Amino acid sequence: MVNNIISEIPLDTRQSYLETAVNLTRDSRSIIKNFISSGFSVSNKPDKSVVTEADTSVEKALREKLISCFPDHGIIGEEFPAYKPDSDYQWILDPIDGTDQFVLGIPVFGTIISLYFKDQPLIGVIDHPALNISVSGAAGLGVRLNGIPVEPGSAFSESTTRRRITTAKRENFLRWQGNGSIFDSIAARFPNLWVYDNCFSHTCVMSGSADAMIEYNVKIWDISASQVLVEELGGKYCCVDKQKRPNGIVTYSAVFGCPALVDEICDIVSSVKG
Amino acid sequence: MVNNIISEIPLDTRQSYLETAVNLTRDSRSIIKNFISSGFSVSNKPDKSVVTEADTSVEKALREKLISCFPDHGIIGEEFPAYKPDSDYQWILDPIDGTDQFVLGIPVFGTIISLYFKDQPLIGVIDHPALNISVSGAAGLGVRLNGIPVEPGSAFSESTTRRRITTAKRENFLRWQGNGSIFDSIAARFPNLWVYDNCFSHTCVMSGSADAMIEYNVKIWDISASQVLVEELGGKYCCVDKQKRPNGIVTYSAVFGCPALVDEICDIVSSVKG
Repeated sequence: MVNNIISEIPLDTRQSYLETAVNLTRDSRSIIKNFISSGFSVSNKPDKSVVTEADTSVEKALREKLISCFPDHGIIGEEFPAYKPDSDYQWILDPIDGTDQFVLGIPVFGTIISLYFKDQPLIGVIDHPALNISVSGAAGLGVRLNGIPVEPGSAFSESTTRRRITTAKRENFLRWQGNGSIFDSIAARFPNLWVYDNCFSHTCVMSGSADAMIEYNVKIWDISASQVLVEELGGKYCCVDKQKRPNGIVTYSAVFGCPALVDEICDIVSSVKG
Repeated sequence: MVNNIISEIPLDTRQSYLETAVNLTRDSRSIIKNFISSGFSVSNKPDKSVVTEADTSVEKALREKLISCFPDHGIIGEEFPAYKPDSDYQWILDPIDGTDQFVLGIPVFGTIISLYFKDQPLIGVIDHPALNISVSGAAGLGVRLNGIPVEPGSAFSESTTRRRITTAKRENFLRWQGNGSIFDSIAARFPNLWVYDNCFSHTCVMSGSADAMIEYNVKIWDISASQVLVEELGGKYCCVDKQKRPNGIVTYSAVFGCPALVDEICDIVSSVKG
């Protein structure tokens, strides 16, 4: 399961990075809960997406702690410019994934933290402050749900009777002059799909509440934790699209979860894309 | 806002029924939380939907309390036969709406309690034990979110720039030899839709987190609380379909929320139905 590049890193070093990542979510949870109590200002970014004081405060706090712990590691985050982009180690931060929902008081938003080594996923954490749900894992070290180890394979049944998928919202599929027919074909094939949007859909897969998820046209920090988590759980992660957009932004689309179902969804995506 | 039939009931009597309904959710919350801690058995009903020990225990407890408080009132519930079906007063109970999600550990399920008088909605409560979110209201007495009064109208902006709707899952639209084209047309018109399914979508509308919801082909206990809640909030509730099915079951489909948006969605439903 652990490739040659990751196996360069001793297990106890990986464990220590994982502990750092999990500790970071204690800080982010506390900051986010304080903003929920006190209220926060909301503004629009140039791309028209919303950002709040909480997003920037959390990312600032996480960056400060990471720089003090690992001054040579790089940091890529949603709200601030990249730090040490040439480092082999890159921490990837989404302080609040699902800011739309955070602003609306819908509790499914979350914080995503991951660490990559030479472009390979090493650590992944998704933390939901308003739901008290946390998923964390590292290459070779398995996955924990709220601190409790998840047995690999237990999240993914190959049952074909009642498969459940979650997807990004249809709007994601339409981004960058895309079209909605991939969403429509998946909704036709899996009419019981839920559209929770954002990292809560990822968490549903990791916790065994959904069998697969399709994420579409998102940025690296939206999806960076999920490959290592799903692979450590014995699932499959398949990147179905990666595009460099005219403004230099790279977008990612991926299907992950139960291996047989991932293959089936990837076939639908391929046949619609033609 | 309160019609002639409901105005037969003095305000303090309505207030007392509302308090009873809210108190009932304290019991249901406690029972559900205990089952979440202890675990519970799951079985399939004849219609293949799932039911758990928690569903039946909650409904039994609510029925016992209602019968002791109001021995002449009727009770309609998801899990047991109707009690005093000829009474003017009918309590309608869904002990766990979203049992699928409850079983999967997804916290958006909820308990729905409503009271009708001569077929008119009088009291509505939706309670989410795992989210600590509760919406309650009564005809002429407004709506409270977690006990705090919501100002009528505040939930529904007529902004046309960023309208957000939630829907039942596409599978609901397919029930009873229906077809998915109503879902597809709504997803095409509102690509940012979320499919939370179940009563959490209703709560999103009542709390102002979504601008409208379309619920489709559900039973009376799935939808019974929402008309009085949305109307007390200054929103619109529109039944778009009510059908008596071959086995005697009556199914309901409704759009509710921001009035202008409800009209727009109803137009889509009408044009697809032809």
